[in-house]
Amino acid sequence: MALLFIPLAVLAQILGLTTVALISVWMIKYLDGFAWDGSSQQFNLHPFLMVIGLIYFYGNAIIIYRITSGLNVPRLAVKLAHFILQLCAFICSIIALVAVFQFHNANQIPNMYSMHSWAGIATVVMFGLQLLFGFLIFLFPKLPERYRTLYMSSHIFFGVFILGLAGATVLMGIGEKLAFAGNYSEFPKAAIVGNVAGSACIGFICIIIFIVTNPNFKFHSYEHVDKL
Amino acid sequence: MALLFIPLAVLAQILGLTTVALISVWMIKYLDGFAWDGSSQQFNLHPFLMVIGLIYFYGNAIIIYRITSGLNVPRLAVKLAHFILQLCAFICSIIALVAVFQFHNANQIPNMYSMHSWAGIATVVMFGLQLLFGFLIFLFPKLPERYRTLYMSSHIFFGVFILGLAGATVLMGIGEKLAFAGNYSEFPKAAIVGNVAGSACIGFICIIIFIVTNPNFKFHSYEHVDKL
Repeated sequence: MALLFIPLAVLAQILGLTTVALISVWMIKYLDGFAWDGSSQQFNLHPFLMVIGLIYFYGNAIIIYRITSGLNVPRLAVKLAHFILQLCAFICSIIALVAVFQFHNANQIPNMYSMHSWAGIATVVMFGLQLLFGFLIFLFPKLPERYRTLYMSSHIFFGVFILGLAGATVLMGIGEKLAFAGNYSEFPKAAIVGNVAGSACIGFICIIIFIVTNPNFKFHSYEHVDKL
Repeated sequence: MALLFIPLAVLAQILGLTTVALISVWMIKYLDGFAWDGSSQQFNLHPFLMVIGLIYFYGNAIIIYRITSGLNVPRLAVKLAHFILQLCAFICSIIALVAVFQFHNANQIPNMYSMHSWAGIATVVMFGLQLLFGFLIFLFPKLPERYRTLYMSSHIFFGVFILGLAGATVLMGIGEKLAFAGNYSEFPKAAIVGNVAGSACIGFICIIIFIVTNPNFKFHSYEHVDKL
C-alpha cells in the first residue's frame, strides 16, 4: 500500500493543477479575463483565486506532512510550510471575497442569497478559525503538549471537513455560474470546461483525503504532537 | 467525549429530518407537489427521493453500528440493517433518476449536461458498487476474514467519501434549481427554504462523519471484521 503513495501524490498534483488550469481557461478564454474595476472581469478573479487558495494550496498544505515524511526535513520547516500555504490560501480567499462583493455592489446584485454563498462564507469563516487556532496552539505561543494532544483530533477532523466543504462550494459555484449564463443545457464549451474542472477538483480532494486518512502513508511519526 | 454521543446522534436526526422536511415543503408548497406524468411535478420527486435516500437513509446506515453499539443487538441484525437501509437508499436513488430522466425527455430538456448531473451519476454509480461489493464481501457469499480485513478500510473510506459527494451533489442541485428559476437573487421564500435545507444537510453530514470517524464513539468492537 505504501508503494501507492508517490503515484497518488503525483496524480493529486496533476488533478489539482488541471482544476486550476481549466478554471483559468474558462475565466480567460470564455469570460474575458481579469481586471479590478467592478466589471465581470473582476468577478472572474473570484473562482480563480478560490480554486488556487482553498483547493490547491489548502490540499497541498494538508498532505505536506506526508510528502516530506521520507525526506528528513526539519519538523519546524514542515509546520511552517503547512501554516504558510494555508495563510496564502486564506489571503487568496479574502481577495476573492472582496472581488465578488465589490462586483455585486457595483452592479446592484444582492450579496449572500445563494446556496453557494452561504456554504462559501461558512467555509472561509471555519478555515480562518482553523488557521487561527492552529497557529495559537501549535506555533505561537504554542500550548503545552496536553492541550495540543487534546486539540489535534479536532484540528485534523475539521481540516478534512473544511476541505470537503470548500470542494462542495466550488462545485456549487461552477453549477450556479453556468446555470445563470442561461444556455447551460445547450452544453457550450465553457460548460464542458467548467464541468471537467469540477470533476478534476472532486478527484483531487478524494486523493488528498485518502492520503491524509490512510495510516500506511505515515512513514514516520511526524504527526505525533509531542514531536511538533 | 463519549458523553457527546447521544446529543450528537439526536442532533443528527434533527438536522437530517429538517433537511427532508424542508425539501418536502419546497417541492409541495412552492413547486406544486408530486405526480408521475412527465410534468415538473414528476421532477419534484427527484430531490425528494434523493435527499431521503442518499442523505438520510445513507447517513443513518453509516452510524447504525455506533447507534446500536451499547444496546446488545445481534451483530447480524446490525449488518442487515446497515445493508437494508442502503438498499432502500439505492432504490430511492434509482426511482429519483428515472423521474428526472423521464421529465427531461418528456420536455425536450437534454440530460447529463450539468455539474450536478455529472457528480450525481458518479455518486450513484459509486454507491451502487459500494453496496454490491459490501454485500458480496461481508454478507453473501462473504469472503474469508483475510479478504474482509483487506477490504474494510476501503469500504469505510469510500463510504464516507460517497456520503460527502452525495451531500455536495444535493447542494449543487439546490443551487442549480434555484438559479434556473431566474429570480434567485430576489431571494424568494423558496430560496430561503432551499438554502436552509442545504445548510441542515451540511450539518447532518458533518455530524455523521464526526461520529463515524471518532474512535471515542466505538463503545465495543463491533467494527472489527473477525466479528462480522
